[in-house]
Amino acid sequence: MKYIQPKITLVGAGPGDPELLTLKGQRALQTANVILYDALVNEQLLTMAPQATAVFVGKRKGYKALSQDEINRRMVQEAFSSGHVVRLKGGDPFVFGRGGEEVAYARLFGIPAEIVPGISSAIAVPGLAGIPVTHRGISNGFYVITAVLADGSVNPELERAVTLNATVVILMGLGRLQEIAGLLCKAGKKEMPVAVISSGSLPEQALVTGTANDIAEKVLEQRIKAPAVIVAGEVATLAKSFGQTLSFKQNHN
Amino acid sequence: MKYIQPKITLVGAGPGDPELLTLKGQRALQTANVILYDALVNEQLLTMAPQATAVFVGKRKGYKALSQDEINRRMVQEAFSSGHVVRLKGGDPFVFGRGGEEVAYARLFGIPAEIVPGISSAIAVPGLAGIPVTHRGISNGFYVITAVLADGSVNPELERAVTLNATVVILMGLGRLQEIAGLLCKAGKKEMPVAVISSGSLPEQALVTGTANDIAEKVLEQRIKAPAVIVAGEVATLAKSFGQTLSFKQNHN
Repeated sequence: MKYIQPKITLVGAGPGDPELLTLKGQRALQTANVILYDALVNEQLLTMAPQATAVFVGKRKGYKALSQDEINRRMVQEAFSSGHVVRLKGGDPFVFGRGGEEVAYARLFGIPAEIVPGISSAIAVPGLAGIPVTHRGISNGFYVITAVLADGSVNPELERAVTLNATVVILMGLGRLQEIAGLLCKAGKKEMPVAVISSGSLPEQALVTGTANDIAEKVLEQRIKAPAVIVAGEVATLAKSFGQTLSFKQNHN
Repeated sequence: MKYIQPKITLVGAGPGDPELLTLKGQRALQTANVILYDALVNEQLLTMAPQATAVFVGKRKGYKALSQDEINRRMVQEAFSSGHVVRLKGGDPFVFGRGGEEVAYARLFGIPAEIVPGISSAIAVPGLAGIPVTHRGISNGFYVITAVLADGSVNPELERAVTLNATVVILMGLGRLQEIAGLLCKAGKKEMPVAVISSGSLPEQALVTGTANDIAEKVLEQRIKAPAVIVAGEVATLAKSFGQTLSFKQNHN
């Protein structure tokens, strides 16, 4: 009889480009028996693990395949019955990924849990659009914040965030952009540069830049789709100049 | 005569563990003619690029191999004379990495510059020590901030940062921990949980936990070495419980 050694590895899949997986993440996939993956994970990554059973546990179009409790139980059940479970999550497991809850749950059952950090959209998506979250003389820090609280309200903390001497990176906020921009204006930041980057790191990446005052309208015009990262702060103005470098590359290579 | 196509790729090397490089970063290294690498980069990564000339351009023990201006010029010069230059930087190129300046400089010379994001220590180092920077019901965001400003003073923004409803991640602050902790206490946060993680992701990783009031003394006792990440906020208390999972893993695998 085969002895099953339960093990859970939380792997950050990065922002979308499958090449932004880490080498350690790849190795975890290659030794997985079961992969439980979320909606924002690029399914191309699953081809690295033809030996594994892949199960979609994410949320699509408002419909949840599984609740968080169901994911936790499935993860533990698969670990005991199949061995090595990779919990493949978009971005980094600990940036609004509920990775902490999953580690804690695994621990209740005495199952070893390992973390493989991922490239977080919060930093990489602005960066790939030419917006460094920190920049000497412009920004000495960045504040990453969720747009909407668990109760569905826009995060009131945003109003304080934009008064800091920092770049503000807002995740999961595209659908509430008008309210968010309104909050910024209310905080006296009408002229604050804002950039919205959709599908960051993927071929369909799109960038819209403006100010708190006009960004919502511009984004509406350009029919930008989720997932998107919102960046508020002076560094958002750098997108254009750096963007030219990047398109130069595309023209000449 | 060989035609030289100049190209610069800024690659984030991650926090230290060479397996935390991305697949895209590995591919960049494998096609590099020259690699200019910083002090916090794990030199094991250079073995992936035996074809390339590797040049150390970092800072060690207060002595800078090259100034930022010299790095910029060297990067451009090598691109024109050798072709593909990989600028290999610790963590992510845009998190206090001066990556923005390097991209801008390359652009002045019309050299295509590509960004390969890296795993940032700001998120991954706490995560690997069992501290999720966000955690449902505890922290809806995190503020990443540099401990010391360009003029050598401790960043006064820290005082405001710890009044937010957010995890505060302080980079490059170990040498000034006593002043930083003092600032937190001054802001009325004596009992705020603080964790210090040294050499995160490497075999010599070490964790010290305490409060703003006692962390400096504890770190001194344990002779923790740089580089270190400081985490202030309720999530710092999670290190211990998650840490047990991780050691369980080490005991049983």
